[in-house]
Amino acid sequence: MFEKNAHTQTAIMDALAQRWSGRAYDSDRPVEREKLLSMLEAARWAPSCFGYQPWRLMVWDRREDFQTWHRAFDCLAESNRAWACHAPLLMLACADTSFADGRPNRWCHYDTGAAVMSLSTQATALGLMVHQMGGFDAKKIRSEFAIPESFDCLAMITVGYQLPQDQIPEEFLERELSPRSRRDLAESFFEGTWGQPIK
Amino acid sequence: MFEKNAHTQTAIMDALAQRWSGRAYDSDRPVEREKLLSMLEAARWAPSCFGYQPWRLMVWDRREDFQTWHRAFDCLAESNRAWACHAPLLMLACADTSFADGRPNRWCHYDTGAAVMSLSTQATALGLMVHQMGGFDAKKIRSEFAIPESFDCLAMITVGYQLPQDQIPEEFLERELSPRSRRDLAESFFEGTWGQPIK
Repeated sequence: MFEKNAHTQTAIMDALAQRWSGRAYDSDRPVEREKLLSMLEAARWAPSCFGYQPWRLMVWDRREDFQTWHRAFDCLAESNRAWACHAPLLMLACADTSFADGRPNRWCHYDTGAAVMSLSTQATALGLMVHQMGGFDAKKIRSEFAIPESFDCLAMITVGYQLPQDQIPEEFLERELSPRSRRDLAESFFEGTWGQPIK
Repeated sequence: MFEKNAHTQTAIMDALAQRWSGRAYDSDRPVEREKLLSMLEAARWAPSCFGYQPWRLMVWDRREDFQTWHRAFDCLAESNRAWACHAPLLMLACADTSFADGRPNRWCHYDTGAAVMSLSTQATALGLMVHQMGGFDAKKIRSEFAIPESFDCLAMITVGYQLPQDQIPEEFLERELSPRSRRDLAESFFEGTWGQPIK
Protein backbone atom coordinates (compact mmCIF):
# COMPACT_ATOMS: atom_id res chain seq x y z
CA MET A 1 0.00 0.00 0.00
CA PHE A 2 1.12 3.57 -0.51
CA GLU A 3 0.04 6.86 0.95
CA LYS A 4 -0.45 10.26 -0.59
CA ASN A 5 -0.73 12.44 2.48
CA ALA A 6 -1.86 16.03 2.12
CA HIS A 7 0.98 18.55 2.41
CA THR A 8 -0.39 20.64 5.23
CA GLN A 9 1.08 23.75 6.83
CA THR A 10 -0.49 22.71 10.15
CA ALA A 11 -1.04 19.12 11.24
CA ILE A 12 -4.46 17.57 10.65
CA MET A 13 -5.78 14.19 11.74
CA ASP A 14 -4.61 11.11 9.82
CA ALA A 15 -8.04 10.15 8.51
CA LEU A 16 -8.34 13.57 6.83
CA ALA A 17 -4.72 13.85 5.65
CA GLN A 18 -4.63 10.33 4.20
CA ARG A 19 -7.91 10.48 2.31
CA TRP A 20 -7.57 10.73 -1.43
CA SER A 21 -9.64 9.72 -4.43
CA GLY A 22 -7.61 7.00 -6.09
CA ARG A 23 -8.76 4.85 -8.99
CA ALA A 24 -6.77 1.64 -8.52
CA TYR A 25 -8.96 -0.69 -6.49
CA ASP A 26 -8.19 -4.23 -5.44
CA SER A 27 -10.93 -6.10 -7.27
CA ASP A 28 -10.36 -9.30 -5.29
CA ARG A 29 -10.68 -7.82 -1.84
CA PRO A 30 -14.29 -7.29 -0.76
CA VAL A 31 -15.35 -4.67 1.77
CA GLU A 32 -16.39 -6.28 5.04
CA ARG A 33 -20.08 -5.69 5.84
CA GLU A 34 -19.16 -4.38 9.29
CA LYS A 35 -16.92 -1.73 7.73
CA LEU A 36 -19.69 -0.73 5.34
CA LEU A 37 -22.08 -0.34 8.26
CA SER A 38 -19.50 1.70 10.16
CA MET A 39 -19.19 4.06 7.16
CA LEU A 40 -22.95 4.46 7.00
CA GLU A 41 -23.12 5.11 10.75
CA ALA A 42 -20.59 7.88 10.26
CA ALA A 43 -22.78 9.43 7.55
CA ARG A 44 -25.84 9.01 9.74
CA TRP A 45 -24.44 11.20 12.51
CA ALA A 46 -23.51 14.14 10.30
CA PRO A 47 -25.13 17.47 11.21
CA SER A 48 -27.97 18.88 9.11
CA CYS A 49 -30.28 21.87 8.98
CA PHE A 50 -33.09 21.37 11.56
CA GLY A 51 -31.68 17.84 11.98
CA TYR A 52 -33.58 16.93 8.81
CA GLN A 53 -30.98 14.45 7.47
CA PRO A 54 -31.83 15.02 3.79
CA TRP A 55 -29.36 12.40 2.60
CA ARG A 56 -30.21 8.96 1.23
CA LEU A 57 -27.54 6.56 0.05
CA MET A 58 -28.01 3.59 -2.21
CA VAL A 59 -25.44 0.78 -2.04
CA TRP A 60 -24.64 -1.90 -4.62
CA ASP A 61 -22.31 -4.76 -3.80
CA ARG A 62 -20.73 -6.34 -6.88
CA ARG A 63 -20.34 -9.77 -5.26
CA GLU A 64 -23.71 -9.92 -3.52
CA ASP A 65 -25.77 -9.05 -6.59
CA PHE A 66 -23.79 -8.60 -9.80
CA GLN A 67 -26.78 -7.91 -12.03
CA THR A 68 -28.18 -5.09 -9.92
CA TRP A 69 -24.70 -3.66 -9.40
CA HIS A 70 -24.22 -3.70 -13.16
CA ARG A 71 -27.41 -1.71 -13.76
CA ALA A 72 -26.00 1.01 -11.50
CA PHE A 73 -22.51 0.69 -12.98
CA ASP A 74 -23.96 1.24 -16.46
CA CYS A 75 -25.05 4.73 -15.42
CA LEU A 76 -21.43 5.87 -14.96
CA ALA A 77 -19.64 7.94 -17.59
CA GLU A 78 -17.37 5.82 -19.76
CA SER A 79 -14.20 7.38 -18.35
CA ASN A 80 -15.29 6.31 -14.87
CA ARG A 81 -16.36 2.82 -15.93
CA ALA A 82 -12.78 2.15 -17.01
CA TRP A 83 -11.62 1.95 -13.40
CA ALA A 84 -14.79 1.86 -11.24
CA CYS A 85 -15.44 -1.71 -12.43
CA HIS A 86 -12.78 -2.88 -9.97
CA ALA A 87 -14.34 -1.35 -6.86
CA PRO A 88 -16.36 -3.88 -4.83
CA LEU A 89 -18.93 -1.29 -3.75
CA LEU A 90 -20.80 1.34 -5.70
CA MET A 91 -23.03 3.95 -4.07
CA LEU A 92 -25.27 6.83 -5.00
CA ALA A 93 -25.79 9.90 -2.81
CA CYS A 94 -29.21 11.56 -3.10
CA ALA A 95 -30.62 14.66 -1.40
CA ASP A 96 -34.23 15.27 -0.38
CA THR A 97 -34.87 18.68 -1.94
CA SER A 98 -37.71 19.75 0.37
CA PHE A 99 -38.62 19.68 4.04
CA ALA A 100 -41.57 17.64 5.34
CA ASP A 101 -43.90 20.62 4.87
CA GLY A 102 -42.94 20.97 1.19
CA ARG A 103 -40.74 24.06 1.52
CA PRO A 104 -37.50 23.73 -0.45
CA ASN A 105 -34.48 22.76 1.62
CA ARG A 106 -31.72 25.15 0.61
CA TRP A 107 -29.20 23.05 2.55
CA CYS A 108 -30.02 19.64 1.10
CA HIS A 109 -26.91 19.40 -1.06
CA TYR A 110 -24.73 20.98 1.61
CA ASP A 111 -25.87 18.49 4.26
CA THR A 112 -25.57 15.52 1.93
CA GLY A 113 -22.00 16.56 1.12
CA ALA A 114 -21.30 16.59 4.85
CA ALA A 115 -22.73 13.10 5.33
CA VAL A 116 -20.63 11.65 2.50
CA MET A 117 -17.54 13.43 3.85
CA SER A 118 -18.15 11.71 7.20
CA LEU A 119 -18.49 8.41 5.39
CA SER A 120 -15.22 9.03 3.55
CA THR A 121 -13.37 9.96 6.71
CA GLN A 122 -14.56 6.83 8.48
CA ALA A 123 -13.66 4.73 5.42
CA THR A 124 -10.14 6.16 5.39
CA ALA A 125 -9.75 5.33 9.07
CA LEU A 126 -10.74 1.74 8.21
CA GLY A 127 -8.12 1.50 5.45
CA LEU A 128 -10.60 1.91 2.59
CA MET A 129 -10.50 4.24 -0.40
CA VAL A 130 -13.52 6.30 -1.47
CA HIS A 131 -13.84 8.04 -4.84
CA GLN A 132 -16.80 10.29 -5.58
CA MET A 133 -17.91 10.92 -9.15
CA GLY A 134 -20.08 13.58 -10.74
CA GLY A 135 -19.71 11.82 -14.09
CA PHE A 136 -22.84 9.69 -14.36
CA ASP A 137 -26.23 9.81 -16.06
CA ALA A 138 -28.53 11.16 -13.35
CA LYS A 139 -31.69 10.71 -15.44
CA LYS A 140 -30.81 7.12 -16.25
CA ILE A 141 -30.09 6.09 -12.67
CA ARG A 142 -33.29 7.79 -11.48
CA SER A 143 -35.36 5.85 -13.96
CA GLU A 144 -33.43 2.60 -13.45
CA PHE A 145 -34.02 2.58 -9.69
CA ALA A 146 -37.28 4.56 -9.44
CA ILE A 147 -35.72 7.37 -7.41
CA PRO A 148 -38.45 9.89 -6.51
CA GLU A 149 -38.36 13.22 -8.39
CA SER A 150 -38.14 15.04 -5.06
CA PHE A 151 -34.58 13.73 -4.60
CA ASP A 152 -31.50 15.05 -6.43
CA CYS A 153 -28.94 12.45 -7.52
CA LEU A 154 -25.61 14.06 -6.66
CA ALA A 155 -22.70 11.67 -6.65
CA MET A 156 -21.84 8.09 -7.41
CA ILE A 157 -19.20 6.68 -5.12
CA THR A 158 -16.79 3.76 -5.27
CA VAL A 159 -15.46 2.09 -2.14
CA GLY A 160 -12.84 -0.60 -1.76
CA TYR A 161 -9.27 -1.38 -0.85
CA GLN A 162 -6.43 0.21 -2.72
CA LEU A 163 -4.40 -1.98 -5.06
CA PRO A 164 -0.77 -2.38 -3.92
CA GLN A 165 1.47 -0.08 -5.95
CA ASP A 166 3.33 -2.89 -7.78
CA GLN A 167 0.04 -4.22 -9.13
CA ILE A 168 -1.30 -0.96 -10.55
CA PRO A 169 -1.73 -1.23 -14.33
CA GLU A 170 0.69 0.86 -16.37
CA GLU A 171 -2.02 3.17 -17.75
CA PHE A 172 -3.16 4.27 -14.29
CA LEU A 173 0.25 4.51 -12.64
CA GLU A 174 1.14 8.13 -13.43
CA ARG A 175 -2.28 9.40 -12.39
CA GLU A 176 -2.28 7.35 -9.19
CA LEU A 177 1.17 8.51 -8.14
CA SER A 178 0.84 12.19 -9.03
CA PRO A 179 0.90 14.44 -5.95
CA ARG A 180 -2.29 15.93 -4.57
CA SER A 181 -2.67 19.68 -4.61
CA ARG A 182 -4.96 22.43 -3.33
CA ARG A 183 -5.14 26.20 -3.54
CA ASP A 184 -3.19 28.02 -0.85
CA LEU A 185 -4.97 28.47 2.46
CA ALA A 186 -4.95 32.25 1.84
CA GLU A 187 -7.01 31.91 -1.33
CA SER A 188 -9.93 30.09 0.28
CA PHE A 189 -10.05 31.42 3.83
CA PHE A 190 -10.52 35.09 4.64
CA GLU A 191 -10.46 37.05 7.87
CA GLY A 192 -12.63 40.07 8.59
CA THR A 193 -13.22 41.13 4.99
CA TRP A 194 -13.81 39.21 1.78
CA GLY A 195 -10.50 38.40 0.09
CA GLN A 196 -8.32 39.23 3.12
CA PRO A 197 -6.12 36.14 3.60
CA ILE A 198 -6.18 34.42 6.96
CA LYS A 199 -2.82 34.47 8.73
CA MET B 1 -16.54 18.84 30.18
CA PHE B 2 -19.22 16.40 29.14
CA GLU B 3 -19.72 14.22 26.11
CA LYS B 4 -22.79 13.39 24.10
CA ASN B 5 -21.52 10.51 21.99
CA ALA B 6 -23.62 9.22 19.14
CA HIS B 7 -25.40 5.94 19.91
CA THR B 8 -24.06 3.87 17.05
CA GLN B 9 -24.85 0.29 16.11
CA THR B 10 -21.31 -0.07 14.76
CA ALA B 11 -18.27 1.75 16.13
CA ILE B 12 -17.17 4.95 14.43
CA MET B 13 -14.12 7.10 15.07
CA ASP B 14 -14.12 9.34 18.14
CA ALA B 15 -13.93 12.62 16.23
CA LEU B 16 -17.17 11.71 14.40
CA ALA B 17 -18.99 10.15 17.37
CA GLN B 18 -18.16 13.01 19.73
CA ARG B 19 -19.08 15.89 17.42
CA TRP B 20 -22.29 17.65 18.32
CA SER B 21 -23.70 21.13 17.88
CA GLY B 22 -23.86 22.54 21.39
CA ARG B 23 -24.72 26.10 22.30
CA ALA B 24 -22.92 26.62 25.61
CA TYR B 25 -19.54 28.10 24.75
CA ASP B 26 -16.84 29.16 27.15
CA SER B 27 -16.69 32.87 26.42
CA ASP B 28 -13.40 33.34 28.27
CA ARG B 29 -11.44 30.68 26.47
CA PRO B 30 -10.15 31.81 23.06
CA VAL B 31 -9.41 29.43 20.19
CA GLU B 32 -5.68 29.12 19.61
CA ARG B 33 -4.64 30.43 16.18
CA GLU B 34 -2.83 27.16 15.44
CA LYS B 35 -6.03 25.19 16.04
CA LEU B 36 -7.96 27.54 13.76
CA LEU B 37 -5.38 27.01 11.03
CA SER B 38 -5.55 23.25 11.53
CA MET B 39 -9.33 23.37 11.07
CA LEU B 40 -8.96 25.37 7.87
CA GLU B 41 -6.29 22.96 6.61
CA ALA B 42 -8.77 20.14 7.15
CA ALA B 43 -11.37 22.01 5.09
CA ARG B 44 -8.78 22.77 2.42
CA TRP B 45 -8.09 19.09 1.73
CA ALA B 46 -11.72 18.07 1.25
CA PRO B 47 -12.59 16.50 -2.11
CA SER B 48 -14.50 18.46 -4.75
CA CYS B 49 -15.85 18.08 -8.24
CA PHE B 50 -12.97 18.52 -10.74
CA GLY B 51 -10.90 19.57 -7.71
CA TYR B 52 -12.51 23.00 -8.05
CA GLN B 53 -12.70 23.73 -4.30
CA PRO B 54 -15.79 25.98 -4.52
CA TRP B 55 -15.72 26.79 -0.82
CA ARG B 56 -14.67 30.12 0.74
CA LEU B 57 -14.78 30.67 4.47
CA MET B 58 -14.79 34.01 6.26
CA VAL B 59 -13.58 34.10 9.86
CA TRP B 60 -14.26 36.70 12.56
CA ASP B 61 -12.43 36.60 15.87
CA ARG B 62 -14.30 38.39 18.66
CA ARG B 63 -11.13 39.28 20.58
CA GLU B 64 -9.00 40.31 17.61
CA ASP B 65 -11.52 42.72 16.12
CA PHE B 66 -14.71 43.12 18.10
CA GLN B 67 -16.32 45.69 15.79
CA THR B 68 -15.96 43.62 12.63
CA TRP B 69 -17.05 40.48 14.50
CA HIS B 70 -20.12 42.37 15.67
CA ARG B 71 -21.10 43.34 12.12
CA ALA B 72 -21.12 39.65 11.25
CA PHE B 73 -22.82 38.67 14.50
CA ASP B 74 -25.62 41.16 13.78
CA CYS B 75 -26.56 39.12 10.71
CA LEU B 76 -27.57 36.11 12.85
CA ALA B 77 -31.19 35.35 13.65
CA GLU B 78 -32.15 36.56 17.12
CA SER B 79 -32.56 33.02 18.47
CA ASN B 80 -28.96 32.29 17.49
CA ARG B 81 -27.59 35.59 18.82
CA ALA B 82 -28.79 34.54 22.29
CA TRP B 83 -26.03 31.95 22.57
CA ALA B 84 -23.63 32.60 19.66
CA CYS B 85 -22.41 35.77 21.40
CA HIS B 86 -20.31 33.56 23.67
CA ALA B 87 -18.38 31.76 20.92
CA PRO B 88 -14.94 33.28 20.32
CA LEU B 89 -15.03 32.59 16.58
CA LEU B 90 -17.72 33.19 13.99
CA MET B 91 -17.46 32.00 10.40
CA LEU B 92 -19.41 32.09 7.17
CA ALA B 93 -19.30 29.32 4.57
CA CYS B 94 -19.81 30.44 0.96
CA ALA B 95 -19.94 28.45 -2.28
CA ASP B 96 -18.75 29.57 -5.71
CA THR B 97 -21.82 28.79 -7.83
CA SER B 98 -20.04 28.46 -11.19
CA PHE B 99 -16.90 26.94 -12.63
CA ALA B 100 -14.12 29.10 -14.10
CA ASP B 101 -15.74 28.93 -17.55
CA GLY B 102 -19.05 30.26 -16.20
CA ARG B 103 -20.97 26.97 -16.29
CA PRO B 104 -23.02 26.45 -13.09
CA ASN B 105 -21.38 24.12 -10.57
CA ARG B 106 -24.11 21.71 -9.52
CA TRP B 107 -21.85 20.41 -6.72
CA CYS B 108 -20.90 23.73 -5.14
CA HIS B 109 -23.12 23.32 -2.05
CA TYR B 110 -22.31 19.61 -1.77
CA ASP B 111 -18.55 20.24 -1.84
CA THR B 112 -18.79 23.17 0.58
CA GLY B 113 -20.73 20.98 3.00
CA ALA B 114 -17.91 18.44 2.77
CA ALA B 115 -15.25 21.05 3.50
CA VAL B 116 -17.09 22.33 6.59
CA MET B 117 -17.64 18.75 7.76
CA SER B 118 -13.87 18.20 7.55
CA LEU B 119 -13.36 21.40 9.53
CA SER B 120 -15.84 20.21 12.17
CA THR B 121 -14.21 16.80 12.46
CA GLN B 122 -10.78 18.34 12.93
CA ALA B 123 -12.20 20.81 15.46
CA THR B 124 -13.74 17.97 17.46
CA ALA B 125 -10.41 16.14 17.48
CA LEU B 126 -8.86 19.32 18.91
CA GLY B 127 -11.45 19.52 21.70
CA LEU B 128 -13.45 22.33 20.10
CA MET B 129 -17.18 22.58 19.46
CA VAL B 130 -18.63 23.70 16.12
CA HIS B 131 -22.24 24.75 15.58
CA GLN B 132 -23.52 25.52 12.09
CA MET B 133 -26.51 27.80 11.59
CA GLY B 134 -28.87 28.37 8.68
CA GLY B 135 -30.61 31.10 10.67
CA PHE B 136 -28.98 34.31 9.44
CA ASP B 137 -29.75 37.14 7.02
CA ALA B 138 -27.88 36.10 3.86
CA LYS B 139 -28.66 39.35 2.04
CA LYS B 140 -27.44 41.46 4.92
CA ILE B 141 -24.14 39.62 5.34
CA ARG B 142 -23.52 39.76 1.58
CA SER B 143 -24.01 43.50 1.54
CA GLU B 144 -22.12 44.06 4.82
CA PHE B 145 -19.00 42.26 3.58
CA ALA B 146 -19.29 42.80 -0.20
CA ILE B 147 -19.56 39.09 -0.95
CA PRO B 148 -19.75 38.64 -4.74
CA GLU B 149 -23.15 37.68 -6.17
CA SER B 150 -21.60 34.57 -7.71
CA PHE B 151 -21.18 33.07 -4.23
CA ASP B 152 -24.00 31.57 -2.15
CA CYS B 153 -23.89 32.26 1.59
CA LEU B 154 -24.78 28.92 3.16
CA ALA B 155 -23.98 28.68 6.83
CA MET B 156 -22.73 30.75 9.70
CA ILE B 157 -20.61 28.78 12.13
CA THR B 158 -19.55 29.23 15.74
CA VAL B 159 -16.37 27.68 17.09
CA GLY B 160 -15.06 27.58 20.63
CA TYR B 161 -14.60 25.48 23.73
CA GLN B 162 -17.55 23.98 25.49
CA LEU B 163 -18.56 25.44 28.84
CA PRO B 164 -18.14 22.96 31.71
CA GLN B 165 -21.50 21.46 32.62
CA ASP B 166 -21.73 23.10 36.06
CA GLN B 167 -21.40 26.54 34.48
CA ILE B 168 -24.12 26.18 31.87
CA PRO B 169 -26.91 28.72 32.48
CA GLU B 170 -30.20 27.24 33.64
CA GLU B 171 -32.09 28.21 30.48
CA PHE B 172 -29.72 26.25 28.22
CA LEU B 173 -29.22 23.22 30.43
CA GLU B 174 -32.08 21.02 29.26
CA ARG B 175 -31.32 21.62 25.60
CA GLU B 176 -27.59 21.04 26.10
CA LEU B 177 -28.10 17.77 27.95
CA SER B 178 -30.86 16.27 25.80
CA PRO B 179 -29.70 13.16 23.94
CA ARG B 180 -28.82 13.33 20.26
CA SER B 181 -30.91 11.34 17.83
CA ARG B 182 -31.00 10.29 14.20
CA ARG B 183 -33.29 8.27 11.94
CA ASP B 184 -32.56 4.55 11.91
CA LEU B 185 -29.85 3.40 9.55
CA ALA B 186 -32.48 1.51 7.55
CA GLU B 187 -34.40 4.69 6.75
CA SER B 188 -31.51 6.53 5.13
CA PHE B 189 -29.41 3.78 3.54
CA PHE B 190 -30.75 1.42 0.92
CA GLU B 191 -29.31 -1.61 -0.83
CA GLY B 192 -30.04 -2.59 -4.41
CA THR B 193 -33.38 -0.81 -4.74
CA TRP B 194 -34.75 2.47 -3.46
CA GLY B 195 -36.27 2.02 0.00
CA GLN B 196 -34.77 -1.43 0.62
CA PRO B 197 -33.07 -1.12 4.04
CA ILE B 198 -29.39 -1.99 4.26
CA LYS B 199 -28.66 -4.92 6.54
